[in-house]
Amino acid sequence: MNSIASDSYVVHFKEKAYNALNEHLKDANYSKIFILVDENTHDLCLPLFMAEINGDYSYEIIEIEAGEIHKNLETCAQVWEAMSELDADRKSLMINVGGGVVTDMGGFIASCFKRGIPFINVPTTLLAMVDASVGGKTGIDLGALKNQIGVINQPQMVLVISDFLNTLEERQLQSGFAEMLKHGLIKDKKYWTELQMLSNFELMDDFIYHSILIKNEVVLQDPTEQNLRKILNFGHTLGHAIESYFLESATHETLLHGEAIAIGMIMEAFLSKELTGLSVKELEDIRTTFLKRYKKIVFTEEDIQAILGLLKFDKKNSHGNINFVLLRSIGNPEIDIKIPNNLYIKAFDYYKV
Amino acid sequence: MNSIASDSYVVHFKEKAYNALNEHLKDANYSKIFILVDENTHDLCLPLFMAEINGDYSYEIIEIEAGEIHKNLETCAQVWEAMSELDADRKSLMINVGGGVVTDMGGFIASCFKRGIPFINVPTTLLAMVDASVGGKTGIDLGALKNQIGVINQPQMVLVISDFLNTLEERQLQSGFAEMLKHGLIKDKKYWTELQMLSNFELMDDFIYHSILIKNEVVLQDPTEQNLRKILNFGHTLGHAIESYFLESATHETLLHGEAIAIGMIMEAFLSKELTGLSVKELEDIRTTFLKRYKKIVFTEEDIQAILGLLKFDKKNSHGNINFVLLRSIGNPEIDIKIPNNLYIKAFDYYKV
Repeated sequence: MNSIASDSYVVHFKEKAYNALNEHLKDANYSKIFILVDENTHDLCLPLFMAEINGDYSYEIIEIEAGEIHKNLETCAQVWEAMSELDADRKSLMINVGGGVVTDMGGFIASCFKRGIPFINVPTTLLAMVDASVGGKTGIDLGALKNQIGVINQPQMVLVISDFLNTLEERQLQSGFAEMLKHGLIKDKKYWTELQMLSNFELMDDFIYHSILIKNEVVLQDPTEQNLRKILNFGHTLGHAIESYFLESATHETLLHGEAIAIGMIMEAFLSKELTGLSVKELEDIRTTFLKRYKKIVFTEEDIQAILGLLKFDKKNSHGNINFVLLRSIGNPEIDIKIPNNLYIKAFDYYKV
Repeated sequence: MNSIASDSYVVHFKEKAYNALNEHLKDANYSKIFILVDENTHDLCLPLFMAEINGDYSYEIIEIEAGEIHKNLETCAQVWEAMSELDADRKSLMINVGGGVVTDMGGFIASCFKRGIPFINVPTTLLAMVDASVGGKTGIDLGALKNQIGVINQPQMVLVISDFLNTLEERQLQSGFAEMLKHGLIKDKKYWTELQMLSNFELMDDFIYHSILIKNEVVLQDPTEQNLRKILNFGHTLGHAIESYFLESATHETLLHGEAIAIGMIMEAFLSKELTGLSVKELEDIRTTFLKRYKKIVFTEEDIQAILGLLKFDKKNSHGNINFVLLRSIGNPEIDIKIPNNLYIKAFDYYKV
């Protein structure tokens, strides 16, 4: 499987990934290597990963608690303090081995430590492989506000090793799969149709590769999200608000990222039918596909009002406007659409039925 | 006074500064302007500044507590939360009006908010004018470790308005003057001699201009501090450790940045005499010049050990080595010098005598 060249670095796959890493470590003369893991990847992925590294390097393993709820400034401060105590310097390397929380937060931690040290991402979830592996977005949450704090900065390389998918539960795989379905919806109808027909997650390599290709093509054309890159936010405007709300709520179970944006995509497909000409047939196709895979959530009136209240914090907003990405048809997105206020409730109603 | 072009932006002076700002605001169509001040600049500088802005823009003033002790993650979190509540979006502008704490931290806050919004720096202290106005360093402290967390990012413009110097006490002016003397020591012997002869701070414009020119020339050649830029750290390796130690100490009065690096420069000049051939005559000249302006500090044995313990956190370190910038002669620095352990105590002894 060929490597994919992104902005200033390369995404390597499977056995080639370990070769590339070993070559890089041999050449780079890092003073020390810091490996960031969470409790899960510490136990399930780190042993596999370490077994493939040749050479005698000085390591430190830093473990954080697992889960989106820990993707915050407090965890960053703890890791920065640990790195200072463990003599990290500007010639140190950080390797982030984990899901999106670890790669997003680890990238931010590395980018700000002593004004920036190099880092490598090793995504271990399907979501992180297809979504966080290209684009250079790093970040953490601020209270309930997702990825409110962060920088754009590129890793030295990204290693996509699909063996790690064997460590995941079905629900985690489905979460990542929602982003892959999104790649079809915004850019490639044929790919959408192929993904719909998948009945299990056993042979994912080619699909992961194709999803990364799609995302890479978009972010290379618009790295700072001035226009084209916004299409990657399809389903995310409502999806992020829903995810944030469930994350903060004391009474609701937390939703995984893919589960939240699956709901967001159904609702934003409805808005697309109303505003940008998506056909009823394609709208129904989108709704059916997501509802087949993702558990339906019941929203109370109170939930909906709270979720709509969070929309004003969306990062795509400007000058007080909430900007949506909608679809003209599957594969054809349109950016910067404003939504008439009365349509939000209708979108929730459409999801409910 | 002509403007100085730096990396991707321009430093404007005095009346030209306000013109440039007003033109920029007229053209840029920001959604909202956030002005960051501390208690002091809120009262002393903000009214003067606001009086010079033409046009009807939407503003929010965010005030933080004054002092290096507040240059930390907690203050950043408070400002980020305030900005979120006040509907800051990616098209918002941040203007940092204050000393180095406000411009360094405000630059960091802007650089990380929603992965980066534009900012303008308006340094109000002599130190911030000559030191923080070019180079793109943003950052905050981590516990006692100075500027341990930050990014390199450039402002839209920097406005150097020397009228603000009238709001400062003598001690603050002396602190900034130490950085100007450093510019002479590392790059320009004639400038060093001119500065030595200054008996007051009344006509500083030309000197400020010259200091910014020197620093700008250095950072343009080496923006990421791979080699040449390290010369700006003369006096800072010991100076930062001394500053950190006094900042954290319950029993010592806090030193201003310039006061700490003045001590650092005397000691590092001594190391230069020992290791890089600085003449005894120039060493004595340096010592006398600084001791004439800056109060002599008494270090106990315990102080010295604690300060030397902090050296390992210096950002210039790599592979366990502490790297110093020393002088071959006034105006001729040399980077990446390792210090034999026995010389540190001798450097303190030389300062003490």
